[in-house]
Amino acid sequence: MLPDVQRMSPEAKFKLTRVGVRGIKKPLVIQRPQKSVNLIGTIDAFVDLPAERKGSDMSRSVEIVSEIVDLSTRKQYRGIEYLAEDIVDKLLKKHDYANYAEVRICTDYFLERTRPSGKKSIEKYSLFALASKRRGEKGKKMIGVEVIAMMVCPCAMENTRSIYYKSFPKNIPVISHNQRGVITIMMDVIDGYEVDADELIEIAEESASSPTYEILKRQEEAEVVWRAHNNPKFVEDVVRDILKRLLEKYPDMPDECRVVVGCESEESIHKHNAFAERITTFGELRE
Amino acid sequence: MLPDVQRMSPEAKFKLTRVGVRGIKKPLVIQRPQKSVNLIGTIDAFVDLPAERKGSDMSRSVEIVSEIVDLSTRKQYRGIEYLAEDIVDKLLKKHDYANYAEVRICTDYFLERTRPSGKKSIEKYSLFALASKRRGEKGKKMIGVEVIAMMVCPCAMENTRSIYYKSFPKNIPVISHNQRGVITIMMDVIDGYEVDADELIEIAEESASSPTYEILKRQEEAEVVWRAHNNPKFVEDVVRDILKRLLEKYPDMPDECRVVVGCESEESIHKHNAFAERITTFGELRE
Amino acid sequence: MLPDVQRMSPEAKFKLTRVGVRGIKKPLVIQRPQKSVNLIGTIDAFVDLPAERKGSDMSRSVEIVSEIVDLSTRKQYRGIEYLAEDIVDKLLKKHDYANYAEVRICTDYFLERTRPSGKKSIEKYSLFALASKRRGEKGKKMIGVEVIAMMVCPCAMENTRSIYYKSFPKNIPVISHNQRGVITIMMDVIDGYEVDADELIEIAEESASSPTYEILKRQEEAEVVWRAHNNPKFVEDVVRDILKRLLEKYPDMPDECRVVVGCESEESIHKHNAFAERITTFGELRE
Amino acid sequence: MLPDVQRMSPEAKFKLTRVGVRGIKKPLVIQRPQKSVNLIGTIDAFVDLPAERKGSDMSRSVEIVSEIVDLSTRKQYRGIEYLAEDIVDKLLKKHDYANYAEVRICTDYFLERTRPSGKKSIEKYSLFALASKRRGEKGKKMIGVEVIAMMVCPCAMENTRSIYYKSFPKNIPVISHNQRGVITIMMDVIDGYEVDADELIEIAEESASSPTYEILKRQEEAEVVWRAHNNPKFVEDVVRDILKRLLEKYPDMPDECRVVVGCESEESIHKHNAFAERITTFGELRE
Repeated sequence: MLPDVQRMSPEAKFKLTRVGVRGIKKPLVIQRPQKSVNLIGTIDAFVDLPAERKGSDMSRSVEIVSEIVDLSTRKQYRGIEYLAEDIVDKLLKKHDYANYAEVRICTDYFLERTRPSGKKSIEKYSLFALASKRRGEKGKKMIGVEVIAMMVCPCAMENTRSIYYKSFPKNIPVISHNQRGVITIMMDVIDGYEVDADELIEIAEESASSPTYEILKRQEEAEVVWRAHNNPKFVEDVVRDILKRLLEKYPDMPDECRVVVGCESEESIHKHNAFAERITTFGELRE
Repeated sequence: MLPDVQRMSPEAKFKLTRVGVRGIKKPLVIQRPQKSVNLIGTIDAFVDLPAERKGSDMSRSVEIVSEIVDLSTRKQYRGIEYLAEDIVDKLLKKHDYANYAEVRICTDYFLERTRPSGKKSIEKYSLFALASKRRGEKGKKMIGVEVIAMMVCPCAMENTRSIYYKSFPKNIPVISHNQRGVITIMMDVIDGYEVDADELIEIAEESASSPTYEILKRQEEAEVVWRAHNNPKFVEDVVRDILKRLLEKYPDMPDECRVVVGCESEESIHKHNAFAERITTFGELRE
Repeated sequence: MLPDVQRMSPEAKFKLTRVGVRGIKKPLVIQRPQKSVNLIGTIDAFVDLPAERKGSDMSRSVEIVSEIVDLSTRKQYRGIEYLAEDIVDKLLKKHDYANYAEVRICTDYFLERTRPSGKKSIEKYSLFALASKRRGEKGKKMIGVEVIAMMVCPCAMENTRSIYYKSFPKNIPVISHNQRGVITIMMDVIDGYEVDADELIEIAEESASSPTYEILKRQEEAEVVWRAHNNPKFVEDVVRDILKRLLEKYPDMPDECRVVVGCESEESIHKHNAFAERITTFGELRE
Repeated sequence: MLPDVQRMSPEAKFKLTRVGVRGIKKPLVIQRPQKSVNLIGTIDAFVDLPAERKGSDMSRSVEIVSEIVDLSTRKQYRGIEYLAEDIVDKLLKKHDYANYAEVRICTDYFLERTRPSGKKSIEKYSLFALASKRRGEKGKKMIGVEVIAMMVCPCAMENTRSIYYKSFPKNIPVISHNQRGVITIMMDVIDGYEVDADELIEIAEESASSPTYEILKRQEEAEVVWRAHNNPKFVEDVVRDILKRLLEKYPDMPDECRVVVGCESEESIHKHNAFAERITTFGELRE
């Protein structure tokens, strides 16, 4: 019988907020409408630890992650947030000393998009999930997306217009700086109120100056540049327009539903980035 | 007169939590006992934005960062947290529409250390500072450190002992897996209660199995390995021992002082990491 | 008819070595013995550019990458190096002004492994492929793997033995520092001489002190630590043992076959890494 | 007397190309015209290893790096390439079994720049140095710079012009996509032919559509956008214009002087990057 060092009593008796494993990489499967999708997840799994116990059984946490992920090839998880939720439940079941469990998953994600020409391209996004539960309480889960979109600066456009393009028609866009923006949306997933990552990605893309595309032929490239300059956006505008669209898309979402929206613009005129963020709830947004 | 697009009214009227710049890189100077230290800071600076204003004047935020950092060559800042605090104050002064400002700075940092042989080496650490203020309230600031230390697993040592080294004296350490651990301490800096980054670094190094060193000759290497194996530590132990040392080091620290301690071990037997964290206050720790 | 700016003549007439796209992310499929494997590739694709042509048709290069990758769901590519080779061929076909094409692919990769207990785990690796061709010449392709393994230092073990464990039996391993090592093997794939990424991964794991595992229960952890300490290895040893195993595994490999082997040890006693590398050919190794 | 495991004979007797340390971080000082500059270097140092020797004395390599870097506070190194050269010389002197030594240094770097308004800003760059020497031969050293600049696409501009701005004057720039470009220049430093990193940074900035700036007030922002759109550049153009400027700036540079120029554009309309590169010599460029 091997010594169980983790069960011993620690010298310094403080409880710990999170104990576990970070950066487990595993292939997993989720079931989307009409297809199953193969993803590679990076997974963190934690429980809390009472003051009297020296260590957490980390190999048990990895086993649980592994079991649920293996299940994903058979059980039809609609999204990685449901997978994270099942891992949380099993962590609490198997670590009987723990009162809290938390799981984070992030993966690359791909969706088919229609280019301006009507042809298709495969675009790359990221998905995030966060599930947590306090023993005896109802668990929480969040779904998140990251979208790389195009941003055209409205301020520089009005300033170049007023200096260099004074005699031009006012309704025609003029030159500005533009760049990649990285948009993130994280949102509570509340039972009975369906939220889909694909919807959040769509909202992010609609709220930027333009989506970005893997392939653009010359005519399409001109169209994307034109549309984006007809739709100039600050990082502030992107975040606000996403908040507005979330309220419209999910009119029945309960007030307590938390939402975090961010946009970081990799400014083409600077070496640093511009950033805007709102951390809020649907209730606050409705005020 | 150029159009001031930022001052216009946005279409979607939501206030924003943080608007500003990320990743400004600047050389700065802090004044340590008996010497001035040249650092390269990566700086983020944000204010909040009311619902009625389209954009924040980001170039003004960068100017403020630049002015205060230039000041650092003349004004004797004891630490980057005081520099961050001054930037926050000026952000609130210059952005009169804002009610909140927040600044984050991180830098590499170097300290001289004594190797087992008594010779000196220069060791690399990281510093973090976070300052924030709500208009009309007292500002808050935190100082943080990151330390790369050596971790020896106590569980694997007792298990190899009980299987392979049964006949060995019990007081002699035996083989285990060991690896780099990344330790972080973040803590409120409260006026009147001096906290020094160098002290936090020392506490982190004392709480791991061993510090790491830039240079170790053969005899020293053996000594470091021996000391570390005489001092095996889980990530949980490291976090708890740091909490204990913080209470001892700062006995008068007010109860409301927040502290976050983390340790991530880059497990030599796994491809993923082990992690422990406590998010707490001095008051909770004293219970 | 839109202007074709790329076909214009540049002001500064210099030919270019590589022109193209970097960092295209795409899901792809390869066909392994008895199963198809879903991977997410990061792909670079370049051609050279003659002095008289202003620009390369980059959207064409992306279309070619996209077509061949789509093919991978139907055509049974044995490995990403064959996929890269097909992209190279098509780049030369479609960019008639180019005399050279080059494609790089890297992906995460997973293999089932047997833990010391006989149970299975899924382990994470990386794959690399590099294909290139000069018009009119035979193309070249390389396959590469990255493996995270465990390294135990032989020097520290002999030094702790001679200081602290003098009276101990000489055939029993004693304490040393150990850590993750990152092993890379890149090798030409020559038609008619089968080389398989799985074989290179196996050679890398056999040449380290021990493989690393996703899950290890207490008994297994002790066994891995024991085996690794019975097999201490410098980064130099790992590289040499891989070279030896490559010669043994591929006795008929032509002399001109290039091979690059590297090992980087994330030293648990230092903040920096130890590194060894050999850039050579099978011919040189046989001398 | 401790065992010297490194001096033993290895089991697999292959020589090694590079053995040493990677990622040593150290503060260092270089002497620029009229000022000394504090930098934080990331340093790699390697020697080769003969087939008969098991290991390289890595702690000796770190000691040498440390000594020469300490010297930098007193000895007036004009640039990090001279520091790298001195480390290489000392590596060969102290590792008598080695026939080759190689050192790489990279650092952040800052220069004052004049904004369009005439005001000053501090801009961030990166420096690289590579020194190597084969015993008995003359050593080689290279200096490199990385510059983040602004890129405006000439193709998209002509296409939006021909579709949306047909009636506009032809000599006025119209909308296009623009973004950050990362420009790198690496070049041999040959004794007697002075090359200065500041000159290479200037050449890189002149060859892009525009430099980027830390601070731009509204008027300045419009000016930068206007200048950049009057100067649209493919990645191909940037590389070629740099090659042209290098020939003009260094007319007497010997033919054998190697130069590598790259430009990577973080396309605002795509999720992937565009890239161009030339690897050449001054002799080839003069053909």
